[in-house]
Amino acid sequence: MVDALRDYEQLAVDRLAQPVADFIAGGSGDELTLRANRRALDRVQLVPRVLAGVEAAVTIDRLVGSAAAMPVAVAPMAYQRLVHPEGELELARAAAAAGVPYVISTLSSVPLEKIPGDCWFQLYWLRDRGVVESLVERAVAAGCSALVVTVDVPVMGRRLRDVRNAFALPEGIVAANLETTRQAHTAVPGLSAVAAHTASAFSPTVSWADLEWLRSRCDLPLVVKGILDPRDARRAAAIGAEAVVVSNHGGRQLDGAVASIDALVDVVGNDIDVLLDSGIRSGTDVLKALALGASGVLIGRPLLWALAVDACDEAFGLLRRELTDAMLLAGCADLQAVKELSWRNDG
Amino acid sequence: MVDALRDYEQLAVDRLAQPVADFIAGGSGDELTLRANRRALDRVQLVPRVLAGVEAAVTIDRLVGSAAAMPVAVAPMAYQRLVHPEGELELARAAAAAGVPYVISTLSSVPLEKIPGDCWFQLYWLRDRGVVESLVERAVAAGCSALVVTVDVPVMGRRLRDVRNAFALPEGIVAANLETTRQAHTAVPGLSAVAAHTASAFSPTVSWADLEWLRSRCDLPLVVKGILDPRDARRAAAIGAEAVVVSNHGGRQLDGAVASIDALVDVVGNDIDVLLDSGIRSGTDVLKALALGASGVLIGRPLLWALAVDACDEAFGLLRRELTDAMLLAGCADLQAVKELSWRNDG
Amino acid sequence: MVDALRDYEQLAVDRLAQPVADFIAGGSGDELTLRANRRALDRVQLVPRVLAGVEAAVTIDRLVGSAAAMPVAVAPMAYQRLVHPEGELELARAAAAAGVPYVISTLSSVPLEKIPGDCWFQLYWLRDRGVVESLVERAVAAGCSALVVTVDVPVMGRRLRDVRNAFALPEGIVAANLETTRQAHTAVPGLSAVAAHTASAFSPTVSWADLEWLRSRCDLPLVVKGILDPRDARRAAAIGAEAVVVSNHGGRQLDGAVASIDALVDVVGNDIDVLLDSGIRSGTDVLKALALGASGVLIGRPLLWALAVDACDEAFGLLRRELTDAMLLAGCADLQAVKELSWRNDG
Amino acid sequence: MVDALRDYEQLAVDRLAQPVADFIAGGSGDELTLRANRRALDRVQLVPRVLAGVEAAVTIDRLVGSAAAMPVAVAPMAYQRLVHPEGELELARAAAAAGVPYVISTLSSVPLEKIPGDCWFQLYWLRDRGVVESLVERAVAAGCSALVVTVDVPVMGRRLRDVRNAFALPEGIVAANLETTRQAHTAVPGLSAVAAHTASAFSPTVSWADLEWLRSRCDLPLVVKGILDPRDARRAAAIGAEAVVVSNHGGRQLDGAVASIDALVDVVGNDIDVLLDSGIRSGTDVLKALALGASGVLIGRPLLWALAVDACDEAFGLLRRELTDAMLLAGCADLQAVKELSWRNDG
Repeated sequence: MVDALRDYEQLAVDRLAQPVADFIAGGSGDELTLRANRRALDRVQLVPRVLAGVEAAVTIDRLVGSAAAMPVAVAPMAYQRLVHPEGELELARAAAAAGVPYVISTLSSVPLEKIPGDCWFQLYWLRDRGVVESLVERAVAAGCSALVVTVDVPVMGRRLRDVRNAFALPEGIVAANLETTRQAHTAVPGLSAVAAHTASAFSPTVSWADLEWLRSRCDLPLVVKGILDPRDARRAAAIGAEAVVVSNHGGRQLDGAVASIDALVDVVGNDIDVLLDSGIRSGTDVLKALALGASGVLIGRPLLWALAVDACDEAFGLLRRELTDAMLLAGCADLQAVKELSWRNDG
Repeated sequence: MVDALRDYEQLAVDRLAQPVADFIAGGSGDELTLRANRRALDRVQLVPRVLAGVEAAVTIDRLVGSAAAMPVAVAPMAYQRLVHPEGELELARAAAAAGVPYVISTLSSVPLEKIPGDCWFQLYWLRDRGVVESLVERAVAAGCSALVVTVDVPVMGRRLRDVRNAFALPEGIVAANLETTRQAHTAVPGLSAVAAHTASAFSPTVSWADLEWLRSRCDLPLVVKGILDPRDARRAAAIGAEAVVVSNHGGRQLDGAVASIDALVDVVGNDIDVLLDSGIRSGTDVLKALALGASGVLIGRPLLWALAVDACDEAFGLLRRELTDAMLLAGCADLQAVKELSWRNDG
Repeated sequence: MVDALRDYEQLAVDRLAQPVADFIAGGSGDELTLRANRRALDRVQLVPRVLAGVEAAVTIDRLVGSAAAMPVAVAPMAYQRLVHPEGELELARAAAAAGVPYVISTLSSVPLEKIPGDCWFQLYWLRDRGVVESLVERAVAAGCSALVVTVDVPVMGRRLRDVRNAFALPEGIVAANLETTRQAHTAVPGLSAVAAHTASAFSPTVSWADLEWLRSRCDLPLVVKGILDPRDARRAAAIGAEAVVVSNHGGRQLDGAVASIDALVDVVGNDIDVLLDSGIRSGTDVLKALALGASGVLIGRPLLWALAVDACDEAFGLLRRELTDAMLLAGCADLQAVKELSWRNDG
Repeated sequence: MVDALRDYEQLAVDRLAQPVADFIAGGSGDELTLRANRRALDRVQLVPRVLAGVEAAVTIDRLVGSAAAMPVAVAPMAYQRLVHPEGELELARAAAAAGVPYVISTLSSVPLEKIPGDCWFQLYWLRDRGVVESLVERAVAAGCSALVVTVDVPVMGRRLRDVRNAFALPEGIVAANLETTRQAHTAVPGLSAVAAHTASAFSPTVSWADLEWLRSRCDLPLVVKGILDPRDARRAAAIGAEAVVVSNHGGRQLDGAVASIDALVDVVGNDIDVLLDSGIRSGTDVLKALALGASGVLIGRPLLWALAVDACDEAFGLLRRELTDAMLLAGCADLQAVKELSWRNDG
């Protein structure tokens, strides 16, 4: 048992093979953006309220049409069997138990149909439109309640840890939603196997027109993940997306991109729901994101570290506790009160 | 003998059991706010005046109706017998000798009636209103000259040092003002004994209505401690409080809360006296707080460290000297002159 | 093979004699400006765009009248045979292969006439105007396509590493464009041999009038290198210069000068093309410079480190890849799109 | 021989007894202001000009009525025989040779009458007005060309290094301008001998009225040293002072006071000449002070370190060279051009 959600990282790093830990922890390039995400969150300071007479903080929420016990969803993360034999099955099970939506990655290591709970499906736009159609149909058929299109990976960011580790998936771990003939098992000089696979499979030319086509073909709520510029948020709203996720892909795509929490402030207020991704490590971070205008957050790495030490239920419990404690300490009975908190940037 | 008030910390830490030192020194969560308090004070820079022709700096003041030899009161701190066999008796004696009001904690380890000097009584709002009433009556009967209601502990901040130390009060140390049957002697997993006791005893639902009720029942000056948002300061003024204490509980409640000195600037100027708490370590810090608009400050940890090495009288002498030296060096004959100092934030 | 352009530095430093590595890496004085260049670039944060539908980023450009495969030219750097037996010949060959203009230094260790590719000639204003005229005529005759006049070396900045190393050119390495009788082979107390040579050869009194005279005598496009103040950029425009290079000479001239990227913002928008020099270490840095308004950049040290380990072709390949990857990740199909990126200064 | 003015510090510290080095290097309290002086100077960044056609930078100046070969005077520093057997005699001799005014301290260890060159006399206001009168008369008689009244020592800042070292003057070193019966030879608990002597000798009540009295009694130009607030600068102008010195006494008085260079900007422009003191370590620092509006600077510690290693002439040469190099590199033919430089605060 650990004392804080962020404590799982060290436990997991101690247990995992280093290339796997690096694959999860790393960012692109010099990891400027990876570090900027944390620095920017740490310098957001909240101004608590007092004497709110709150017995218990109510965190029940709706996120993109899903009921959510707290304003949190599990971020899409590839290949979760890298860290736990059950992989996605186990993390999604725990998410469901915690009342939290789970976002299935296109690159999940378990077929999407087998993943339990209230799931959203994350779509990478693949070169083969037939596969895109098929994935969307499968997601609908499997009862997914939203479609999350990741738009910040036209090419994969250059993650130097993986390059240096010549990182490749171990035997037996595959992108289970995709055809099995071409998978991420072979690194080439200068390119990890995962990057090589991405380069061959993903379409760099995905465009707004593609999203409009998708919007017209599928009734699921559409979430556009990877937005940092308000102009793009307005465009997402214009094509009928339900929400955008402000994200720099956890510092794994453009190194030198703005920190997610700094971008959030500019994206909020453009007539579309905004979720925050990239850098969240604690319940207090969730509170900060909400205070700055996010409707909810996606949490990734901390839950993957917890999965690696088989502590998913405990992790959701800790997260919930950290969030409700922070709300009580900030004098917030509910999420509406959180939005009215003042804050300052101690930059 | 030490050379500066802040020197007691190292001496005390060297002498105390580590869990006790941690209980005093620690903050909540990642201790972001604990560190922010100091960083924010250190970057306040004063602009001294010259040729003021000051023989000696006059620090005599009235604080919340008490005469005070300097604009300082001893912050309420629990269980002072943890660090000294006489605990509150000794620190309050020295405070009285120094002409400084002493704030008795609800959780004092000596009954409030035995504590000497000009005392204010600090009230945690307990679940049992009968106990609240009884404590207030006892404080009045004992001659306390103000009532300080702490409003930033609806629940206790998660102080990870205490959790990791499974911190519990040693045999023989109790909250002497409260019934002796349930005390902070038993840690439970994930919760220090102090946190467990707090959770069982304190009311999380204390509200402005409760304060109004108290205001109507007790003629003592009312001080609301734990205010950071100016909206709450105005509310305190509206219900007839005498003063507010801008405080983040020494970085022990919401981790991620704004530094106290940064909040001060926004709270000042709302038609109510403002005291500053959290982070003060020297006479120069007192000067900074006054220059930024505080009427006075509460000082906690430095005096507890001094108590631990049985140097309370010396500590008050040093504090007084540091303050008067700083006033003279800033060209301030009195506290009014301090308010007219310019300052900058070297952020 | 390395993974990023900046990786050559360590490889080269490991291989070169320390005084040579110091001569390349060092700045003047306390190296405040050297460090400021990097710090300022690192805190520029870009806001990527998404869904641009870009197959491949087009980087083809015209720089000062030259065709350029990317908006980059090789900065003028003296004595390249210090690090490689072929020196300028090899770096210029690789630049030509990469489609990048190469700027020949007045102090090149190979005669300008022998250097291959699309070259610009960099002119230090020498005390002897006859030599200046002769150099310009030779540059024209050799087919150079632009003239880059360096204006920030009226005297040489005091580079303490070189002074401490009593740095002098090894036997056999000379400023091959200049007369061979007085060369940088002898350090004197307090002065490296290079500084002594500069002091004897360069004219400290070069003025705008000299540039006007040059402008009237030579039809090549004129680039003024070493501009930091917008007033000087306007003056350069007024005398008919084609472009200015915002540069602090890689932190080697006035220590305490503004970082180049910070100066860029003020210089842009004064009716003259602006190139950026000083501090560029990666393709992402190029993207930042362009987003902030530069028409292109000069890159120096990273290419010299690559030359030292005989990896010039690979280095240009990496740079190109870093730039196109960054453009794709920022959703930029071409250089025009880069100019429309938003950015923030995380200062 | 050293390479930069600041290099003397390490040489001197290696040679001096540690308490003496501490007496020179130290600041008051936590040395916040001592460090702030340097940090603030380092973050001032200049924007050089180019093509000024400058053969040599002209630094000839008038400082408070004195001819000065550069806009620099030697700051008043006590007890220079602590570091060199000739003390003030040697440093003043070198200053005169360099064409730089020398400010004799009230606490000089050599009688003011013996000190050569163009000297200003620095006056601490002593409790005994007769002594003040006598010192002024002696300064006039000795041919001093200005009177510098230090106004930031109503009491001495608490310099903890000296307290911890129980610092006292060695046998044979005295304040040679004062009566010899009470000197700084005996530390008392909590007070260095120098602080004890100051406390007994200096008048804390010196006021503007005293300065007006002095102004009326003495025709020498009056310089008020230790001003940080523009209100005090205006008052100095109003009573007829010639100049003020913006100074925090090298971080030795109010710890927590604003950095001198940050205060400078506010003090300039109040109808009185402004000199800068506190933190200058190089010719570039002088340039920065001038660019921000100072008419000149006082330099202290670097020259004392140079005196300690018997290198005063070399030190003035280095300073001059650093200043003229910086002027040339900034494109400044003279001090007027320096005032027109742009700058930014990289804070």
